[in-house]
Amino acid sequence: MKTIRNKFVLLAIAIAGLTTAYAQDPLPSWNDTASKKAIVAFVAKVTKEGSPDFVPAAERIATFDNDGTLWCEQPMYFQLLFALDRVKALAPQHPEWKTKEPFASLLKGDVKGALAGGEPAIAKIVMVTHAGMTTAEFEKIVSDWIATAKHPKFKRPYTECIYQPMVELLAYLRANGFKTFIVSGGGIEFMRPWTEKVYGIPPEQVVGSSIKTKYEIRDGKPVLMRLPEINFIDDKAGKPVGINQHIGRRPIAAFGNSTGDQQMLEWTQAGDGARFMLLVHHDDAAREYEYGAEGKIGVFTPALMDLATKSGWTVVSMKNDWKTVFAFENK
Amino acid sequence: MKTIRNKFVLLAIAIAGLTTAYAQDPLPSWNDTASKKAIVAFVAKVTKEGSPDFVPAAERIATFDNDGTLWCEQPMYFQLLFALDRVKALAPQHPEWKTKEPFASLLKGDVKGALAGGEPAIAKIVMVTHAGMTTAEFEKIVSDWIATAKHPKFKRPYTECIYQPMVELLAYLRANGFKTFIVSGGGIEFMRPWTEKVYGIPPEQVVGSSIKTKYEIRDGKPVLMRLPEINFIDDKAGKPVGINQHIGRRPIAAFGNSTGDQQMLEWTQAGDGARFMLLVHHDDAAREYEYGAEGKIGVFTPALMDLATKSGWTVVSMKNDWKTVFAFENK
Repeated sequence: MKTIRNKFVLLAIAIAGLTTAYAQDPLPSWNDTASKKAIVAFVAKVTKEGSPDFVPAAERIATFDNDGTLWCEQPMYFQLLFALDRVKALAPQHPEWKTKEPFASLLKGDVKGALAGGEPAIAKIVMVTHAGMTTAEFEKIVSDWIATAKHPKFKRPYTECIYQPMVELLAYLRANGFKTFIVSGGGIEFMRPWTEKVYGIPPEQVVGSSIKTKYEIRDGKPVLMRLPEINFIDDKAGKPVGINQHIGRRPIAAFGNSTGDQQMLEWTQAGDGARFMLLVHHDDAAREYEYGAEGKIGVFTPALMDLATKSGWTVVSMKNDWKTVFAFENK
Repeated sequence: MKTIRNKFVLLAIAIAGLTTAYAQDPLPSWNDTASKKAIVAFVAKVTKEGSPDFVPAAERIATFDNDGTLWCEQPMYFQLLFALDRVKALAPQHPEWKTKEPFASLLKGDVKGALAGGEPAIAKIVMVTHAGMTTAEFEKIVSDWIATAKHPKFKRPYTECIYQPMVELLAYLRANGFKTFIVSGGGIEFMRPWTEKVYGIPPEQVVGSSIKTKYEIRDGKPVLMRLPEINFIDDKAGKPVGINQHIGRRPIAAFGNSTGDQQMLEWTQAGDGARFMLLVHHDDAAREYEYGAEGKIGVFTPALMDLATKSGWTVVSMKNDWKTVFAFENK
């Protein structure tokens, strides 16, 4: 009787142990490689009271780039795909676009031709699709688009083209007292309508590029009109500026994937105490995209790779470090 | 024996009742007038699940002006007093100021003469005292000043010249799931070094006016240099712009004291569902200041009073609605 009871006790302990081990892996979509180990070790040391690396919860600020870090950015930035869809939707109200670049090429289906005009062409497309309405109207346009549009390759809503390991990482950091922010070159008002639902990041924790807005009374009601004028570009050296302006504290952890994130990681690293910097390397042609060294947006240059090595930044190989890239793979 | 025990029980219940009543008044520095009742009624209805006015916690955004709403703004904005002190401290490095306005008047102790040049004079003073250093250097300058400088009338540190009823209100709202923000015309970097300690408002929940900053590498280390160029004025019609840019959600409650807050209150009120707007009226010459109708900073014009009445905004009479103005009164 006693032996049987002991066996039950041992079995119970074993089951409890298994359950705990399972419940304790907060990053199940990460392979058990050096990247995951580095993340877990960092979180352990900054959250352990009495540790020399301990950081009070209020200062556990983690910033994440969005395009290419939290969600896919190929075949081009999703916000640009949004803008192209908007040009098509608005074309009937703009007969002049038939002979005016970059709109003429675009409406003929020649995206490459339309974008051949470079930054000024993109700026024209962005301004006609992002300005000239109230903030509330723009929010509705974005919400409607994101609810219906699908990624050309994955045939899934864009909000499903998010990296499952990074979604787990966001939740893991928050469970450890971190406040998670998006710090993206993308438009702040393009992200806010869906980041809370998709990433658990509320609007007030989204930092991004913006156009100017103006407070007006329209039909007796106050509105904020979106003006065709750049307010702030939250990219490259703009990221530390945006972080300081918006958050007012230096992050202790920063996550990016491209040269656009370099300064954010440098700024993060230059603070006192324990720091964690990570770059996602897109080397997975089978499950996502393989960028190669040059010539694509969100480029991960050899110089950036050298800097990451020299600086002790964690470089995630999507191919080797991630068990799952997109949650829909497992469906 | 039984009777005695019963008496003890009754006494214990009575004491418990008193303790509970005391513990349950989260606004002890407020008199039991209509203003306090309106605040409590608003919080009750937006936090009661199932109520038609219920607001989910994530959307319980409350914005507070700072100067004249959370802390005193007389005899002039404290940030201006800071700037004047800085001019004196920097004068030895600037011999040319002896003959250059507004500095010459200022250094002779003629503050009124120095400020006679109006906005341009103030801008000159602000730029030489607020720009030309890194963000870290400026933070240290502000922290040192706020730790030592004293209010000319109250002979107390400026961080004690805060309105105790408003400090209680901030805590009361947070205890009810609200996220509290400062939305001030004052400098964002002037407030952030002390708002967490003084008001419980972390840097990332401070919105304010700002100058431009630039990311640079200095002696091999990244810094943000403060440039002598205005970035954003968070006042009047700028407040809804700043709120949208920074918070990305419309507040459901807004607190101010002057014409500089009018648009913030209008923007707050124009949202759907239950709303609460409050203005602090400085009518207490004995304990703080009595502004009168016109001619002072932070002016509460008759037009603003009319608007408040017409719009159903709560107007706090410091004299009648506040039992205590400053915590130091009770010491």
